Amino acid sequence: MLELRLVQGSLLKKVMDAIKDLVNDANFDCSSASFALQAMDSSHVALVALLLRAEGFEHFRCDRNISMGMNLGNMAKMLKCAGNDDIITIKGDDGSDTVTFMFESPTQDKIADFEMKLMDIDSEHLGIPDAEYQAIVRMPSAEFMRICRDLATIGDTVVISVTKEGVKFSARGDMGSANIVLRQNTTVDKPEEATIIEMNEPVSLTFALRYMNSFTKATPLSNTVTLSLSAELPIVVEYKIAEMGYIRYYLAPKIEDDEEETKPEA
Amino acid sequence: MLELRLVQGSLLKKVMDAIKDLVNDANFDCSSASFALQAMDSSHVALVALLLRAEGFEHFRCDRNISMGMNLGNMAKMLKCAGNDDIITIKGDDGSDTVTFMFESPTQDKIADFEMKLMDIDSEHLGIPDAEYQAIVRMPSAEFMRICRDLATIGDTVVISVTKEGVKFSARGDMGSANIVLRQNTTVDKPEEATIIEMNEPVSLTFALRYMNSFTKATPLSNTVTLSLSAELPIVVEYKIAEMGYIRYYLAPKIEDDEEETKPEA
Amino acid sequence: MLELRLVQGSLLKKVMDAIKDLVNDANFDCSSASFALQAMDSSHVALVALLLRAEGFEHFRCDRNISMGMNLGNMAKMLKCAGNDDIITIKGDDGSDTVTFMFESPTQDKIADFEMKLMDIDSEHLGIPDAEYQAIVRMPSAEFMRICRDLATIGDTVVISVTKEGVKFSARGDMGSANIVLRQNTTVDKPEEATIIEMNEPVSLTFALRYMNSFTKATPLSNTVTLSLSAELPIVVEYKIAEMGYIRYYLAPKIEDDEEETKPEA
Repeated sequence: MLELRLVQGSLLKKVMDAIKDLVNDANFDCSSASFALQAMDSSHVALVALLLRAEGFEHFRCDRNISMGMNLGNMAKMLKCAGNDDIITIKGDDGSDTVTFMFESPTQDKIADFEMKLMDIDSEHLGIPDAEYQAIVRMPSAEFMRICRDLATIGDTVVISVTKEGVKFSARGDMGSANIVLRQNTTVDKPEEATIIEMNEPVSLTFALRYMNSFTKATPLSNTVTLSLSAELPIVVEYKIAEMGYIRYYLAPKIEDDEEETKPEA
Repeated sequence: MLELRLVQGSLLKKVMDAIKDLVNDANFDCSSASFALQAMDSSHVALVALLLRAEGFEHFRCDRNISMGMNLGNMAKMLKCAGNDDIITIKGDDGSDTVTFMFESPTQDKIADFEMKLMDIDSEHLGIPDAEYQAIVRMPSAEFMRICRDLATIGDTVVISVTKEGVKFSARGDMGSANIVLRQNTTVDKPEEATIIEMNEPVSLTFALRYMNSFTKATPLSNTVTLSLSAELPIVVEYKIAEMGYIRYYLAPKIEDDEEETKPEA
Repeated sequence: MLELRLVQGSLLKKVMDAIKDLVNDANFDCSSASFALQAMDSSHVALVALLLRAEGFEHFRCDRNISMGMNLGNMAKMLKCAGNDDIITIKGDDGSDTVTFMFESPTQDKIADFEMKLMDIDSEHLGIPDAEYQAIVRMPSAEFMRICRDLATIGDTVVISVTKEGVKFSARGDMGSANIVLRQNTTVDKPEEATIIEMNEPVSLTFALRYMNSFTKATPLSNTVTLSLSAELPIVVEYKIAEMGYIRYYLAPKIEDDEEETKPEA
């Protein structure tokens, strides 16, 4: 028996928007501690990991660990039927081949039950080792989204270069090239507008913009995003979900033929 | 000679939006008492009836009963050219094959005349007998629109079931099923947010969602909608037009093969 | 060496939106006095002339006259990457085959450099002789945009007829016809809402609405638009750019076979 009640139901709608373009089908893993998901994108290039801790739910009951295979497109369509102020409850029964999403309006005058068929999905849980990163950048999530979108008009890949002074995003294509520099800036009035760089050594890595732009679908979940970079490690793009957990995206850097493109720039 | 002057011209634009997707061509019937329309949708499944009483117009002159055949798509395009604050006057001459829509801006500095060709349309006026309904539900029109839209993501038909406690809307499809229950609720602060059920006996009927979603195009005309249901009678979906009349849609219930689907549920 | 710094960078974005649908590639001509462009549209029917005077820039350095060939679609895409509050600087070097657009955020924490390849474009600068016009109409630009858009639902051409009392816009098509009359009106509270007619003699000319609708893309640049009309001369549709210059569109009138259509109407 599973019953997870989330007062802030709109959060679950935002989570779906952050995942559904990247992953078609995935197992949600529920234990007494958390509701979580880990899945490769459909082209097996990027990895997404979602964690929602039990403490963030108003009511969280999960009698035994279960894994529920869901079509994320269908799940997103059903959750879109919840009002933005609705309380959402996820319900499952042991051995059932369905899951139920219950939406309660704030006034309790409207109650909706959406029952969705579950799927059998083969998946292996990848262990993600903790790693030391050469550079960690925390910046406003809206700014990161804007930069990825703007650079996608110029080229297919972005070079992210971090120095003590700032972080540079570069792209190059048929019509020309672009460099966007954000300076380290910790003295802003609002902490969520800061750009903070923790750096052990300069790093410069190249990534496919198509995936970066998919990751930025998580922007409504958090005011800030954290990029963790190391040579030869996948970048981690993390959006914290207040008081509940996070959504993290992992993407391996591209190995460029052209040395010019990957060499750290001063 | 016909001259109908409507200060609140935007109302006529909303009326067109409520009809034009359902009906291509129709006769508007004008008498000394009203400006009205009755037409089957293009697939001859649903019926729409519009009544605008003479009292609602600032000026209403219609010397003799006439019927003007109009292409509703063209009429909607012309009325879209009226500003939202414009006064609209509909003008016709006996024996003319055109109708003129005049739009006056509130300052009278801009006057537009749109002249539209009339059409000959065969139509028989169907008598709609007054009927007793097993259940009548009055509810917020925006809520009804939202429910029809949401259920259309799940299935093609909606089962509407009315009991004393509330009204249930259900749909079923490949990805799963959905039940949305609205409870009778007459104690809200704003009368237009109430859900009021008058019921002689429980009723449960199935309708094509495609038509229901067309009917909800009338939502901007009224804060509330009234559903009148009886077994073996078409549902009436009515939007009142303040101080002028109404727009009513009629749709026959579907006869389901599966008894489960049409049986009233407790 | 060229360096043009414009604090109100969003103005340059609006200028691109006003030109890019009409012209694919064009030379920007820069002198010590101004940054300007003159180009025929791609079907060689309409002419657009842009003037931005040096005084309107915060910093304007242009050592010698140069002509820079740009693809306007690419330029517009790059300028879209500037924030609405950004300061934009256009930079060029003598003999270089690129131009750089630099965007600085108001806080100076984000600096973007977009480098665009230049093109060789053959163009001859057309002398546009000063002319006396039979009628000059100044009117709100949003009203002109609305009228052109509305009439395009009715027909392909607009007849613009000016008398002392007002200006009439007419169109005719399969579904009917439309006449929109704006009365001379100089006593409005806000000067930008006035319709002012200077007329030497009545004039009535026919123009392709497709081009008129392209011209109205300049509406965000100015609250008012000025139409200058004379028989056998191209109409001039001018949007002033505050304190900097203007954008002007020229379009030759159509010669109608049907005399009815071009004859001035009382």
